[in-house]
Amino acid sequence: MKSIPTLIFLLYVGLMGSSWAQQRPNPVVSPEILPDNSVIFRIKAPSAKSVRLFGTWLKDLRNTVEMTPKDSSVFEAKVGPLPADMYEYRFIVDGIPILDPVNTIATRDGSYIESRLMLPGPLTQLYDVQSVPHGVLSAVWYPSPTIGMDRRMEIYTPPGYEKSGKKYPVLYLFHGAGGDEEGWVSRGRTNYILDNLIAAGKAEPMIVVITNGVPSVAGAPGERPAFAKPATNGVQAMTSGKFEESLMKDVIPFVEANYRVMADPAHRAIAGLSMGGYHTQQITNANPGTFSYIGVMSMGLFDGPNARNYNRAEHIKQLNALKQAKPKLYWIGCGKDDFLFESVTKLRALYDQVGLPYTYRESDGGHTWVNWRLYLTELAPKLFR
Amino acid sequence: MKSIPTLIFLLYVGLMGSSWAQQRPNPVVSPEILPDNSVIFRIKAPSAKSVRLFGTWLKDLRNTVEMTPKDSSVFEAKVGPLPADMYEYRFIVDGIPILDPVNTIATRDGSYIESRLMLPGPLTQLYDVQSVPHGVLSAVWYPSPTIGMDRRMEIYTPPGYEKSGKKYPVLYLFHGAGGDEEGWVSRGRTNYILDNLIAAGKAEPMIVVITNGVPSVAGAPGERPAFAKPATNGVQAMTSGKFEESLMKDVIPFVEANYRVMADPAHRAIAGLSMGGYHTQQITNANPGTFSYIGVMSMGLFDGPNARNYNRAEHIKQLNALKQAKPKLYWIGCGKDDFLFESVTKLRALYDQVGLPYTYRESDGGHTWVNWRLYLTELAPKLFR
Repeated sequence: MKSIPTLIFLLYVGLMGSSWAQQRPNPVVSPEILPDNSVIFRIKAPSAKSVRLFGTWLKDLRNTVEMTPKDSSVFEAKVGPLPADMYEYRFIVDGIPILDPVNTIATRDGSYIESRLMLPGPLTQLYDVQSVPHGVLSAVWYPSPTIGMDRRMEIYTPPGYEKSGKKYPVLYLFHGAGGDEEGWVSRGRTNYILDNLIAAGKAEPMIVVITNGVPSVAGAPGERPAFAKPATNGVQAMTSGKFEESLMKDVIPFVEANYRVMADPAHRAIAGLSMGGYHTQQITNANPGTFSYIGVMSMGLFDGPNARNYNRAEHIKQLNALKQAKPKLYWIGCGKDDFLFESVTKLRALYDQVGLPYTYRESDGGHTWVNWRLYLTELAPKLFR
Repeated sequence: MKSIPTLIFLLYVGLMGSSWAQQRPNPVVSPEILPDNSVIFRIKAPSAKSVRLFGTWLKDLRNTVEMTPKDSSVFEAKVGPLPADMYEYRFIVDGIPILDPVNTIATRDGSYIESRLMLPGPLTQLYDVQSVPHGVLSAVWYPSPTIGMDRRMEIYTPPGYEKSGKKYPVLYLFHGAGGDEEGWVSRGRTNYILDNLIAAGKAEPMIVVITNGVPSVAGAPGERPAFAKPATNGVQAMTSGKFEESLMKDVIPFVEANYRVMADPAHRAIAGLSMGGYHTQQITNANPGTFSYIGVMSMGLFDGPNARNYNRAEHIKQLNALKQAKPKLYWIGCGKDDFLFESVTKLRALYDQVGLPYTYRESDGGHTWVNWRLYLTELAPKLFR
């Protein structure tokens, strides 16, 4: 029988093999947040020739920062001061992208798993877990005859939903290419943002439905049949129109039949980022009058030969019908450094030409969750009021 | 304006910087599952001196497997044939533990994030997403006056719960030291195991409540206030008795007030792994007659000076009261290679001495999720029938 102190140690490390433990008992501290929101990243990598750092605070997302060896084993990089925000980052050790081994918090979306950095400030108060009433976040399966499978989505119900007996408005919220239904949760912090905005009286209590926009799969990588053939994850499947069709025929009817929902256009909002902004456009263009609030984030005009037979005349016809339906809000947000900035400019020019009113928000930064979280904090307060 | 093919490519890789992409366009395949359930692991690591592989199929969890350079850039290891099961694994590149860069599926529990390997076979059919009705998995916050904060738990409601109008029995399920309320979901596959057992008529439809057993924190690392002082994660907090008290005073009353529950001992089950098996013992010893079904996984007698004033006479007194209460099932499971095997032997000897009946399941393997998933598939069918 092992001694009791040994037993306690083994209990404590019960889940680990020996390898994670190599960072201990003298672990480096990473990330270390300084009072001015500068951040020091560190990694113990005694054999590495080169360690670089990627983070979503970078203006050019193709860049990385060189980390410098501080002693025989620890590489270090100091960045900032950074705006108080939430970021994703990773180390690249001799070319291999890795999580920060001593940061226990990673976030994911699609095939990307990265370490989380949260810096204290007004914006991150909205992203953080606060002492306010919390809604319930549920992973829900629904039948999609349109796509031919049961599929997974995340549904946020606001605090008090279970017992209020009330009906609520609904926001349908879409991820981008390469992402999945967990992106707006793991990275987007949607449930906490809504908790905090609702508690502050800044957003109406609402249900948020977060779907998976890739019609060839049932859900996120770990939440779909493990032995199915590799899914077609390409843009071709994503822009096939099947997801948009299923949203109208499968998702909305399911939500309106199974939740206490105000099932009319005035209480239906729709928004998405990047590819999800394309889906939002496709759905609202094809179904004028169905949604009173529309949000397009970091996505512009997707025209040209690969855009599923794009037809400008047809697009203008749809936009005219949408204009006639008078949505209460058509919100467009884009970062100045977004690679899709020009496509957004083209989209706005077309809306100006048609005379479709929209609210435009131009932020700093590029095509990252830093912007999409920000946009949600700004868009949600404009819905249903 | 970028060309449309470029735009499509950028949309597709919208979320990534350049670094993950380095594995492309000629990515290695990893893990490659061969027809006999041998597995080849590969990683492109041109600068690495040493790459090792850890996986939960290893008999001795302190071991790792050496990966050998196959050409100038790719390290490789072939293992198995392995029993068809689900495993966690990681690479150790020059001493740094990392995820498999080309495997998009990672699982987590507490501070551990590792890559997932699932091999096809009868057992993993129970762990996989099948074409059967799915229950709903919800992250729920509840007030814990006992601990002094709102806390997070995961609740599985069985297929049909929303509309059946029926009441259901409840299993309370606990994680181990170093883990959190997401462990039984991310690694334990609890919701899919229950979906599959219920669909096959092998388990009663039941609610499963998965708590966080560390009373110093509100929830998993990413689901607690970001700027709170570092939590005391040690065994001292975990074995303080506060969690056990909160389960009785806060969790069960919340569940029975907010869900359609058969709120009597005959329809209340409790089980946990490792530290959660200790919690299970503490709760059922102190509350005889409250739970008719008790499951202790990979945990034995936790006696001695560090075990919160362990008192053998008091323990025997409690066990006698528990024996009088005649639980319908007291189930104990342990792996032959578990470092706690001897403590389980001691616990069984004590139960034999007292005359408390129990069902004992001895499996191969050690203190890993491979066993805990297996135990859930065997324990759940014995509950409430």
